[in-house]
Amino acid sequence: MKVSILGATGYAGAELLRLFYNHPQAEVVHITSESHTGEAIADIYPHLRGLYDLKLESLKDIEAIGKDSDFIFIALPHGHAMAVGKKLRDLPVRIIDLGADYRFNDTAVYEEWYHVEHTDPDAPRVYGLAELFRHEIRGAKIIGNAGCFTTASILALAPLAQQHLIDTHSVIVDAKSGVSGAGRSPKPGNHFPELYDSFTAYKVATHRHTPEIEQALSDVSGEEVLINFTPHLVPMSRGILATCYANLKDGVTPELVDAAFTKMYAKEFFIRLLGRGAYPATKYVRGSNFCDIAWHIDPRTHRVIVLSAIDNLVKGAAGQAIQNFNIAAGFDEKTGLDFTPVYP
Amino acid sequence: MKVSILGATGYAGAELLRLFYNHPQAEVVHITSESHTGEAIADIYPHLRGLYDLKLESLKDIEAIGKDSDFIFIALPHGHAMAVGKKLRDLPVRIIDLGADYRFNDTAVYEEWYHVEHTDPDAPRVYGLAELFRHEIRGAKIIGNAGCFTTASILALAPLAQQHLIDTHSVIVDAKSGVSGAGRSPKPGNHFPELYDSFTAYKVATHRHTPEIEQALSDVSGEEVLINFTPHLVPMSRGILATCYANLKDGVTPELVDAAFTKMYAKEFFIRLLGRGAYPATKYVRGSNFCDIAWHIDPRTHRVIVLSAIDNLVKGAAGQAIQNFNIAAGFDEKTGLDFTPVYP
Amino acid sequence: MKVSILGATGYAGAELLRLFYNHPQAEVVHITSESHTGEAIADIYPHLRGLYDLKLESLKDIEAIGKDSDFIFIALPHGHAMAVGKKLRDLPVRIIDLGADYRFNDTAVYEEWYHVEHTDPDAPRVYGLAELFRHEIRGAKIIGNAGCFTTASILALAPLAQQHLIDTHSVIVDAKSGVSGAGRSPKPGNHFPELYDSFTAYKVATHRHTPEIEQALSDVSGEEVLINFTPHLVPMSRGILATCYANLKDGVTPELVDAAFTKMYAKEFFIRLLGRGAYPATKYVRGSNFCDIAWHIDPRTHRVIVLSAIDNLVKGAAGQAIQNFNIAAGFDEKTGLDFTPVYP
Amino acid sequence: MKVSILGATGYAGAELLRLFYNHPQAEVVHITSESHTGEAIADIYPHLRGLYDLKLESLKDIEAIGKDSDFIFIALPHGHAMAVGKKLRDLPVRIIDLGADYRFNDTAVYEEWYHVEHTDPDAPRVYGLAELFRHEIRGAKIIGNAGCFTTASILALAPLAQQHLIDTHSVIVDAKSGVSGAGRSPKPGNHFPELYDSFTAYKVATHRHTPEIEQALSDVSGEEVLINFTPHLVPMSRGILATCYANLKDGVTPELVDAAFTKMYAKEFFIRLLGRGAYPATKYVRGSNFCDIAWHIDPRTHRVIVLSAIDNLVKGAAGQAIQNFNIAAGFDEKTGLDFTPVYP
Repeated sequence: MKVSILGATGYAGAELLRLFYNHPQAEVVHITSESHTGEAIADIYPHLRGLYDLKLESLKDIEAIGKDSDFIFIALPHGHAMAVGKKLRDLPVRIIDLGADYRFNDTAVYEEWYHVEHTDPDAPRVYGLAELFRHEIRGAKIIGNAGCFTTASILALAPLAQQHLIDTHSVIVDAKSGVSGAGRSPKPGNHFPELYDSFTAYKVATHRHTPEIEQALSDVSGEEVLINFTPHLVPMSRGILATCYANLKDGVTPELVDAAFTKMYAKEFFIRLLGRGAYPATKYVRGSNFCDIAWHIDPRTHRVIVLSAIDNLVKGAAGQAIQNFNIAAGFDEKTGLDFTPVYP
Repeated sequence: MKVSILGATGYAGAELLRLFYNHPQAEVVHITSESHTGEAIADIYPHLRGLYDLKLESLKDIEAIGKDSDFIFIALPHGHAMAVGKKLRDLPVRIIDLGADYRFNDTAVYEEWYHVEHTDPDAPRVYGLAELFRHEIRGAKIIGNAGCFTTASILALAPLAQQHLIDTHSVIVDAKSGVSGAGRSPKPGNHFPELYDSFTAYKVATHRHTPEIEQALSDVSGEEVLINFTPHLVPMSRGILATCYANLKDGVTPELVDAAFTKMYAKEFFIRLLGRGAYPATKYVRGSNFCDIAWHIDPRTHRVIVLSAIDNLVKGAAGQAIQNFNIAAGFDEKTGLDFTPVYP
Repeated sequence: MKVSILGATGYAGAELLRLFYNHPQAEVVHITSESHTGEAIADIYPHLRGLYDLKLESLKDIEAIGKDSDFIFIALPHGHAMAVGKKLRDLPVRIIDLGADYRFNDTAVYEEWYHVEHTDPDAPRVYGLAELFRHEIRGAKIIGNAGCFTTASILALAPLAQQHLIDTHSVIVDAKSGVSGAGRSPKPGNHFPELYDSFTAYKVATHRHTPEIEQALSDVSGEEVLINFTPHLVPMSRGILATCYANLKDGVTPELVDAAFTKMYAKEFFIRLLGRGAYPATKYVRGSNFCDIAWHIDPRTHRVIVLSAIDNLVKGAAGQAIQNFNIAAGFDEKTGLDFTPVYP
Repeated sequence: MKVSILGATGYAGAELLRLFYNHPQAEVVHITSESHTGEAIADIYPHLRGLYDLKLESLKDIEAIGKDSDFIFIALPHGHAMAVGKKLRDLPVRIIDLGADYRFNDTAVYEEWYHVEHTDPDAPRVYGLAELFRHEIRGAKIIGNAGCFTTASILALAPLAQQHLIDTHSVIVDAKSGVSGAGRSPKPGNHFPELYDSFTAYKVATHRHTPEIEQALSDVSGEEVLINFTPHLVPMSRGILATCYANLKDGVTPELVDAAFTKMYAKEFFIRLLGRGAYPATKYVRGSNFCDIAWHIDPRTHRVIVLSAIDNLVKGAAGQAIQNFNIAAGFDEKTGLDFTPVYP
């Protein structure tokens, strides 16, 4: 399969290159960057020296790139993918967008939270979270790859939502991410001395991953879901831990909670259920496509607390995209993703 | 004032030494350690070289130490202070315990959560959180210095509890601490390569700071308070950020929330109200006795989210102890604590 | 090939498991640990959950393990491998020791620096640094895998020593390592809060990697080599950067220096020559078997400064061991090691 | 004393504000920033909230600021101080420049290394390293405050240079700094995810602190000094460790080395001699004006290795400036600087 990556100089793009290097069924044929057109990717990312000879091209030739690719991975800021999607609508090439443009069933929600008009609202698209929407992903033209915080949050709560074990208006997701989640552009807020040995929250009650989590959990449960989502910045490079709270419905026992997780995930390779009372850590999944999940039940408050850990650049971005690609292309879902985390 | 420190080789003890070095009204006369008796403190803590000549003594001489001290600071693991308190009951020396032994009104709660019998249940004692219990601290014989997580959590929520703006059964405190909070003894879980570039939760629904937060908020509000408290370990040395969630009662407006914080804290030097919509960061209080507080209101869920940041070793331990000491000794509350955080 | 790992619970052992997971020609059949005998490796190292079912055995059955293995990797503290080597002398199994026992031509040097008697001095052995001693490794019974600091240092200086461009008595190696190099046992010195936001040197003029570097450079150059080696601890998990200084002989030009590196390494896959004036960083090789090398020439002092970066657990330990294994077993040297570093 | 700070929004400027907050003899009256004119410093640096009401002014009014100040601290990028110095020549105000403009005896050296013409070459000035040039600092009009790397390096080597114990052409300084040394402007190279868990060198053989170290050591020894200086970036916020190598002259004994350090520094409050065989760490001086020094002698190579640790923002910048201010103003040298490091 010939694959191309738009926006290859961001961290998600670079991670796609890392993972595709060992994918036996795919070859990266085009990579683009508007600010580095003509440069070798190994000059931007020295860790790729000796491993990739590719030079960065411009998006201007998107039709040519589309014709020369079986799959296109879009790792551009939100608002850019819909233009690409429109232009490539009639080509056979398939699209996996790592941004938000194609994640929403209802583009009005997208427009409200992203403050931009959606110019391709009728595009045929599916939400790219393999464990929940595998069937739909298989034949999709456009896959709106799930976001990083959202993947950790949705996977943590989906079994409980699906089995109607929780009050879907009581959900609180307190999430923590390494700094690579904020992208590769230097900003005062991401300057090393500012973050090192510090911890803070941001975008409380206003983060754009909120409606995405609500949408997926509503789809799974059939109920309206209304959550609080609070992201935090951890002084580390990679990793997300989501701490999710929900009120259990009357009569829900610990065993019912256990069963919900087992029922949904027992056969999922990339989801590792640590069980009730356990503790995932971001380092145990670092560099890998795994999502580690554990849960706790507090009899005093009759709440369930679910903990989930992912690598934001893998299961939260590039790894998930390749998992979706494998499904869409008809490969074994683990192809190119079957390796251990990097520890310590 | 002659002060002594029991358990001076732990991080809280060392921080007391750092802060007392610039306290104009106090002199440290005795320091103890059972495992390092006879050694110079500057050999244990090289940052104190040239600044302290003190040698570590044994606790065995506690009566002699008690007679030679106006105040004794106890920085021992829980369960040890009550024996000391009993022995010193009839001496004029006053006690500030940085552990949990004297924090609870009801020792049955202590015994339930700490799994140890309380051997000094009738001791006259006050809870050492100056901003809420200043009046009681003034004349106290024994001050049970508030804990690190609890200080951040209680200060964040007390104004809302006092003004009855929140459902006190809906409170969730998701707290994050630097690793110094786990003490100075090396353990596999605190080994550098295990924690670096990693993030995890621990003691979900079972952490001992839970009943302490509930007690103080109940005292302030007159209502029963039932919370979920979840601690997390941040790969950094110092600092706590508490993210606190509560359901606002019907009809509570943002302005009422603002007013509650202002009413309680406007005149408090060590509490810096950043206001509605702002973001504290642990680095902005590092090394200092400040507690920075901000709050957010989510109109979608009608919840309030309060963020508070402290340095766990200062406002969460040694600084708070000295603030309590200043009150108890009749000094200006800021004495020895009026300096800026260390940034970056 | 059936391989076994003695001392699998240390960081080097765990890294062997990580790397062998994707090695198509090898299967790990036995792993040992005396302190965790009977436990599942995935319980010790949760990042391996779902990927390895192996349980830890005891070394007591070393002959049985030896009979059931084609290769044995020893990841034990120094002093333990020689006993194993002796016991397995007459079995066909081959040995790759990641410790120091079999690294020295002259066991008197080993005994002087390691303060232990060598009990297997006559063992047939080769020094396991593939780029320099590939030919000898091919048929070896026992391979004394090169150490972490030594690998970075020797690879940086070998071309200059071989071509006689430097005064071999002027060499200074100032090396910096992440904390995983100190092993997995918690010690006060490696306790998270002690190291975080700190930097220090250790074992100045006395570190055991000194004679190992001298031996290899002497072997390459035919001259006596006498160096200063200074290790430092960087507050990070992985990675070594060696900054190597040497006085250039009279008349040595920058071009001669460039040529020495090219001549020795142009065809080496795992050595990436960044060239004169460039800067390797540990992060650009993290998780991989690469050694990135650059050099600078100071015309003011007529010195050459060579910079080399490796991942201490890969090219400095487990990756190098597998590279040696590939050579010894007749596989392509890159087998199981041909992947990109993990960045950022 | 009325003091003003030009360039108060950089890290050195902010550190001056931190330290002056507790200086009993000085009041900060003006602070400037061209990019933040009119803003409150506490809005730029939230750690100063509640502690400083000052607003940032523009440099354009430098004469007015000069007339209203007893001392002016310049914390601007190099090349800007000389213009200020010229304009204030005839006012009684005295100047402490934290940049390089006034550090060199010979402005030709400045021009060669800084690539800028010196427009105030005849200014009366002294080099601001108190332990070596205290006498000259006392009455100086302009003090060229010593740089961060240079302070650590010069203090480490000065005793040996002064006593002629080392070959002054053999000196190598391998120095490591936290990232705050690179300033507050976000750049790709200082973006958090790029540096975290990474280590690298920069400006090998070309760093501008090289001639400054050579000048000071030449002044002390009377001999020409020619060094290699190599800076490295440590993934931490604060701190410098300098590892300094020199060949001992024939016949120099360890005792002579010990005596050289004692002779020069025994009475210096801010220099803590740890002695022969010891190890300074940056964390033991963090936040303080101390310079911790230890040394090692390698009998194999007859070299001395000196280790020195400072906080780059204190003894390497703002603390040193205040120490110089205290001397120049006739105060006790420790005024405002007599406190313990912040550990852990």
